[in-house]
Amino acid sequence: MNLNDRWFTEQCDEAGCALSYRIEAHLHSEQSRYQKIDIYQTTDWGRLMAIDGFVMLTGRDNFLYHEMMTHPALFTHDRPEDIVIVGGGDCGTLREVLKHASVRRAVQVEIDERVTRLAEQYFPELCESNDDPRAELQFADGVKFIAQLPNASQDLVIVDSTDPIGPAEGLFGPAFVADCERVLRPGGILVQQSESPLIHQNIIRPLRDKMRNASFADVRTLPFPQPCYPSGWWSCTLARKAQSLESFRTEAVETRQFATRYYNADIHRAALARPEFMKAW
Amino acid sequence: MNLNDRWFTEQCDEAGCALSYRIEAHLHSEQSRYQKIDIYQTTDWGRLMAIDGFVMLTGRDNFLYHEMMTHPALFTHDRPEDIVIVGGGDCGTLREVLKHASVRRAVQVEIDERVTRLAEQYFPELCESNDDPRAELQFADGVKFIAQLPNASQDLVIVDSTDPIGPAEGLFGPAFVADCERVLRPGGILVQQSESPLIHQNIIRPLRDKMRNASFADVRTLPFPQPCYPSGWWSCTLARKAQSLESFRTEAVETRQFATRYYNADIHRAALARPEFMKAW
Repeated sequence: MNLNDRWFTEQCDEAGCALSYRIEAHLHSEQSRYQKIDIYQTTDWGRLMAIDGFVMLTGRDNFLYHEMMTHPALFTHDRPEDIVIVGGGDCGTLREVLKHASVRRAVQVEIDERVTRLAEQYFPELCESNDDPRAELQFADGVKFIAQLPNASQDLVIVDSTDPIGPAEGLFGPAFVADCERVLRPGGILVQQSESPLIHQNIIRPLRDKMRNASFADVRTLPFPQPCYPSGWWSCTLARKAQSLESFRTEAVETRQFATRYYNADIHRAALARPEFMKAW
Repeated sequence: MNLNDRWFTEQCDEAGCALSYRIEAHLHSEQSRYQKIDIYQTTDWGRLMAIDGFVMLTGRDNFLYHEMMTHPALFTHDRPEDIVIVGGGDCGTLREVLKHASVRRAVQVEIDERVTRLAEQYFPELCESNDDPRAELQFADGVKFIAQLPNASQDLVIVDSTDPIGPAEGLFGPAFVADCERVLRPGGILVQQSESPLIHQNIIRPLRDKMRNASFADVRTLPFPQPCYPSGWWSCTLARKAQSLESFRTEAVETRQFATRYYNADIHRAALARPEFMKAW
């Protein structure tokens, strides 16, 4: 069966699979200084943003990714106050972070301002906390931003990046991972989107090694469903300085004052479960 | 980006998305009495079987589905001895069931013998237990087969069917669900593949209602990753007669004498976790 022009297709060359969405309209297309950004209106998945032909998010399923990139780490940390988000230009991660009352300052460091400007226009629901006085939007290189931070100054660094090719390649390198460890306080957590547990083991396993080599005390890969990414199964990898990632503030999760659609205490525990094939990692 | 003839594409009309696999060869194609069956050699997912254009399984990821359709139910039941598999013509579910030493008899009731014959040829690893003396392969209508079983004669009925359109439609109807309840012994479990938790809520929720209406004591939907099905996120729904599905034989899981690639005790518990949006179901 051949898809016609009413479909947007992302081809995942390294895994021989492709994902397509039926579209109603191509709302926007531009070549920014860094990358090509496209916005589509789909028939069933809300709006879709693609960068260089890769799906970044859809309106229908981004809640899975944004909740899992944030709440497990924020509810594991005793009191997350100072947060840096590297990438995350659609502002969905920032919005989830700011749901936590303990947060004093959340800096989003996105290299491409156009991603954020387009998110404000086409995904306003993700940007609804951008005016929060605790939020700071910087448009800069994440590697350089982390490099200028003082030692032990942050509680969380969340690397919400594109795939480790192109602009984001440096965010998966050993020097950057080590620098994140440097800027974290003891108990601090690095969260990194870490691709598919099934088809990107060649990315996850080296990333975990880099984290261990950077002296993090504990490293855990949390799988979660994410239909709009290749294989539909994605992960974030957490690395914690000086403490374990095994337990979290269960009662705080149970009594949280904000809504979630996927995350809860049972799901947090579930995400810590290692599929049998991951036990050797 | 347009995919060329080197790709097999399944279009999921009801959810406006599509999944494609890069193929090396179209190994077989036939119209059986019931449906069109195609076998492809893919570049990255091993062999792929499609029925009427829908992906049934790939060599690379079927372990997720087959393990989750079987082990949670078999390790929940105190001593599963008599099992019926409705559908399951590729024999992967049968193979997993027969890994349990307590099983005395496992009858696979597949309507289309050609599915099994092609699985024997193209997926021999899934059929490696077909000669087990406890296995019985019947090629018959699953609804009629269940109808002729005595009351309270089975420990598990596993409905490993295609989507609830075409030949499998009756397997999602209230009369069939009620008849499964009738043939189960107290403590017996009905396992039904139940589509995607995200995009097929219109199928799962009515199925759960039918199970409750059929007097099952407990109903649980277990999500799991399944890259080759639409959204990459799939589920089975378990319904138990007279007992709860909450606990399982943890020690038996920990000391099992067979290998799994996804399932283990932590994954079993994880699969019981309800995503927040499922709590209202």
